[in-house]
Amino acid sequence: MSDSSLKNKIEFILVEPSHPGNIGATARAIKNMGFQNLTLINPKDFPSDESFYRAKGAKDILQNVKIFQDLSSSLQNATLIFGTSARTRTIPWPTKNSSELSEILKKGLENINVKICFVFGREISGLSNEELQMCDYHIKIPTDEDFSSLNLSHAVQIISYVLKMEIDNIDSIPEIIDETPTFKDNEYLIEHFDKVMKKIDFYDQENPKQVKTRVRRLIKRLQPDKLETGILRGFLSKIEQILNKKN
Amino acid sequence: MSDSSLKNKIEFILVEPSHPGNIGATARAIKNMGFQNLTLINPKDFPSDESFYRAKGAKDILQNVKIFQDLSSSLQNATLIFGTSARTRTIPWPTKNSSELSEILKKGLENINVKICFVFGREISGLSNEELQMCDYHIKIPTDEDFSSLNLSHAVQIISYVLKMEIDNIDSIPEIIDETPTFKDNEYLIEHFDKVMKKIDFYDQENPKQVKTRVRRLIKRLQPDKLETGILRGFLSKIEQILNKKN
Repeated sequence: MSDSSLKNKIEFILVEPSHPGNIGATARAIKNMGFQNLTLINPKDFPSDESFYRAKGAKDILQNVKIFQDLSSSLQNATLIFGTSARTRTIPWPTKNSSELSEILKKGLENINVKICFVFGREISGLSNEELQMCDYHIKIPTDEDFSSLNLSHAVQIISYVLKMEIDNIDSIPEIIDETPTFKDNEYLIEHFDKVMKKIDFYDQENPKQVKTRVRRLIKRLQPDKLETGILRGFLSKIEQILNKKN
Repeated sequence: MSDSSLKNKIEFILVEPSHPGNIGATARAIKNMGFQNLTLINPKDFPSDESFYRAKGAKDILQNVKIFQDLSSSLQNATLIFGTSARTRTIPWPTKNSSELSEILKKGLENINVKICFVFGREISGLSNEELQMCDYHIKIPTDEDFSSLNLSHAVQIISYVLKMEIDNIDSIPEIIDETPTFKDNEYLIEHFDKVMKKIDFYDQENPKQVKTRVRRLIKRLQPDKLETGILRGFLSKIEQILNKKN
């Protein structure tokens, strides 16, 4: 598989960017590293002259940009999702340093039908907890502890540089027919768990959300293949059938 | 030696930046990675509101910026100089990929009195041949071949990120008393060679500049220590004495 077809499996997603200049600078940054897929979630000001001006020779990236109203909709066919986060969260998530992407990326790129997303948060407030929990991994770009707030397009530049270096180092990738479940498949599985847990009164009445988040984290870390997802969902359906019979 | 004192040995130099926004974004980019030394050569518009606005929390870097009228003046006490360059030049220079900095950097940081400079060229035209020949090494940031022109502050962000990763990986550095000659010492040596070569009519009459550039490249690649510089200059002086006696 050629370099450019590997790079085509990568999608950069900006969530609610406020400054059009950052959108243009991001387009330029990813194109500089050979990438082309950019998605915007509910951008404050786009299209705009400022974003096209700052894109310089990457105006084609902006012309082909995809726009969604929320992050979840944009992720439906994703098979591997990375969210960038500077802060530590209440429920710790599998987190990788930007220099440790190699192995996961290699595994993630093995299949033909993969779509790997890198999600970047708002300039001021980053990604919400809910958005971060849609991700399989969190990525932390190492910065100085006393001054960690990177400009949005600069964060994208670092990640796209690291990705280019990693992909350039991949000699050849076996083309396996894809059995990776998508974001959508995983969401169905999580909702299925949620439904059954509610039915069996499993939830702590005082903190039901905490349990669901931990189940979500478990599924994200597990990254089941399609067969495993089928087994788990079959198992949950079976429990439901038994419960229905009992009532 | 602590991380921050290693980082303090690094200087970022922007040659004739035209956009004040790039100056501010550069200040933020280097501070994000724990660096603080910024030098501007003949900036078109500085200080300016735009540069301070774009610097965000890195206004202190701009307040302490050093300004020179030409690159050579700013390099006088430098012991190791890297110039960024996207283009291939007539006379090939020792060139490193941004991911291959590790070893040179480690060696360069060994001494107490080192000053390592990273020189970035103009937004449109980069560094001139003369400026590039002041550098010990050229650095190439790998980019897509079809779209290689990085935004200035984004190029600085990539280099400062790579430097941070390298420096964070250095466990401990022996503090050797410095015997590294500075840019100034090397320039004296190059000029000395030039003077003697002229005296002995060594130069190709049709292309004297070409020869001098090759001598310059040789000295840059050699990186003689102070003792070796002394030997070479002593040798040149001896030749001069003999020539003077003969006339």
